[in-house]
Amino acid sequence: MTEGMTERTTGTNLQVRLAARPKGLPKDSDFQLTEEAIPQPGEGEILVRNTLLSLDPAMRGWMNDVRSYVPPIGIGEVMRGLTVGEVVDSRHPDFSPGDAVTGVLGWQRFAVARGKDLTRIPPEVPPRLAMGPLGMTGMTAYFGLLEVGAAKAGDTVLVSGAGGAVGSMVGQIARIRGCRSVGIAGTDEKCRWVTEELGFDAAINYKTTPDLHEEIRRTCPQGVDVYFDNVGGDILDTALRNLAMRARVVICGAISQYNATEPAKGPSNYMMLLVQRARMEGFLVFDYVARFPEAQAEMGRWIAEGKLRHREDVVEGLENAPRALLRLFDGSNMGKLVVRI
Amino acid sequence: MTEGMTERTTGTNLQVRLAARPKGLPKDSDFQLTEEAIPQPGEGEILVRNTLLSLDPAMRGWMNDVRSYVPPIGIGEVMRGLTVGEVVDSRHPDFSPGDAVTGVLGWQRFAVARGKDLTRIPPEVPPRLAMGPLGMTGMTAYFGLLEVGAAKAGDTVLVSGAGGAVGSMVGQIARIRGCRSVGIAGTDEKCRWVTEELGFDAAINYKTTPDLHEEIRRTCPQGVDVYFDNVGGDILDTALRNLAMRARVVICGAISQYNATEPAKGPSNYMMLLVQRARMEGFLVFDYVARFPEAQAEMGRWIAEGKLRHREDVVEGLENAPRALLRLFDGSNMGKLVVRI
Repeated sequence: MTEGMTERTTGTNLQVRLAARPKGLPKDSDFQLTEEAIPQPGEGEILVRNTLLSLDPAMRGWMNDVRSYVPPIGIGEVMRGLTVGEVVDSRHPDFSPGDAVTGVLGWQRFAVARGKDLTRIPPEVPPRLAMGPLGMTGMTAYFGLLEVGAAKAGDTVLVSGAGGAVGSMVGQIARIRGCRSVGIAGTDEKCRWVTEELGFDAAINYKTTPDLHEEIRRTCPQGVDVYFDNVGGDILDTALRNLAMRARVVICGAISQYNATEPAKGPSNYMMLLVQRARMEGFLVFDYVARFPEAQAEMGRWIAEGKLRHREDVVEGLENAPRALLRLFDGSNMGKLVVRI
Repeated sequence: MTEGMTERTTGTNLQVRLAARPKGLPKDSDFQLTEEAIPQPGEGEILVRNTLLSLDPAMRGWMNDVRSYVPPIGIGEVMRGLTVGEVVDSRHPDFSPGDAVTGVLGWQRFAVARGKDLTRIPPEVPPRLAMGPLGMTGMTAYFGLLEVGAAKAGDTVLVSGAGGAVGSMVGQIARIRGCRSVGIAGTDEKCRWVTEELGFDAAINYKTTPDLHEEIRRTCPQGVDVYFDNVGGDILDTALRNLAMRARVVICGAISQYNATEPAKGPSNYMMLLVQRARMEGFLVFDYVARFPEAQAEMGRWIAEGKLRHREDVVEGLENAPRALLRLFDGSNMGKLVVRI
């Protein structure tokens, strides 16, 4: 805390701002590193020093000037992002220096927040878990699979992006809840990880399999009851061909399409929704905020019992965040990609 | 009845069979007209003389050799189709000559059926209603809109193929249930019909509007709560752009794609399902058979009260059925397309 206070007076606030709207994959020149004075909290505000920044596929969408569930990041604005940090100064009665907190505080070392922008991380919870299973990542997997997907024991759950932060959680929650759990990922290493360490029943490397459709059929012989989609494109289309009757397709993301410079490829097999009386549904984890505590309690128990594993892929240094973001799109991250600020 | 008995002994059974699997729009040579002896009912069977044949977009799909909710029609088999007819001979205790019945008896003058294949049409119901509002058409509209689409008073309901059999019912049921009802159709005549005679709040001619997206925005200023899709393709894609929060997209058909020789165009705006936390769901009316009586009772009341209107587009002669089917795809039918056999 003392260190924090000192830093506040002598350091500067390193920030990553959006310099230009990317066309396709973001380039270095789409970002701008800036330094400014550390901001001062006003009445009712809190100064937070960010220690970890979550990198998420959705960030790519926020960089586009399109209608979506949040406004686009403005040119010249600090990049939007979820962080974990520590309170260094507070003019709010509920927060004190040293408190661990999480919030959407941006790609920057320091941020001034209002009380309602912050969630306190209890002392017994390692702050890094607030970025993974107990944070947005875990909540996305939990509510997407169990509420939107309505997965129940005996179901076959297929998840794409299985080696990623959300996908690796989805497959584990499915297994814990008594489902058959099959992942699709882009490297043999990821496939081994999810089957050998995370307990998935099977995994498919979509880049090396000669026939993804046949592989899904082989690993999901009863058809797919819940398909949790993080990727879109051809994988979504092939999954649709393998739906079981009354299947649920959960639309969580479409990472294969986020850097497309043409209109996204729509799922041409969507009429399988009719053939199989199935549904496809999108969701946003923010809609479940009121129920986070129950989910966090259950996920916390699973972690304590050793049933749910969490893996981080850590990049050092905020200045490396723009290039680290690209790792989500080339698929080189395993587990939750975070930047240590 | 006497006439029926006579015809059974002296006439022949005219049939339309599938001669070849169509590529694109069906051609005359994809069908074969055959005549054979009128079949005799065996023990427990009923001989029916068909009087009306329903022509439905789904028939085009049944002609393809692909996995679907029913097996494809085999080459050389009588075309599958829903008919209304009259019992001419019965060796089943529950059916007597003169009974009006409906069933999937095919594109033919006579058919032998088992008791479980037939539904009796009560004497007080005009048989033609069993093909429209009280038959598959009406049941499809009713359960698709109210169950799958979960339409409720105050919702904005947008329906494509509004001048067709199902679409014209959907918009009327929506209006009766207190929804704002907007149709998309392909001629000004259809648009006038659904607004001036059927009470839709608005209709859009998608062929002449310079900007379908803007027209949907203008006619559905609060966004679309239920989009009932009969057509697929670009219209589905544009409707997705206009969904309200937690909207329901009901997939009933995709007539724009049924004759495509390339893979169907998938809805590239499907990620609006995520942005708006919306769902897209397919259904088959057959799954609701157990609940037909309640729906038929309600639809019957609406007809009696003059709230629900039904229009038929009648083609004379079974031999004209193959060409009449094409009218569904060029959009020249208004209301329910039937063949008088």
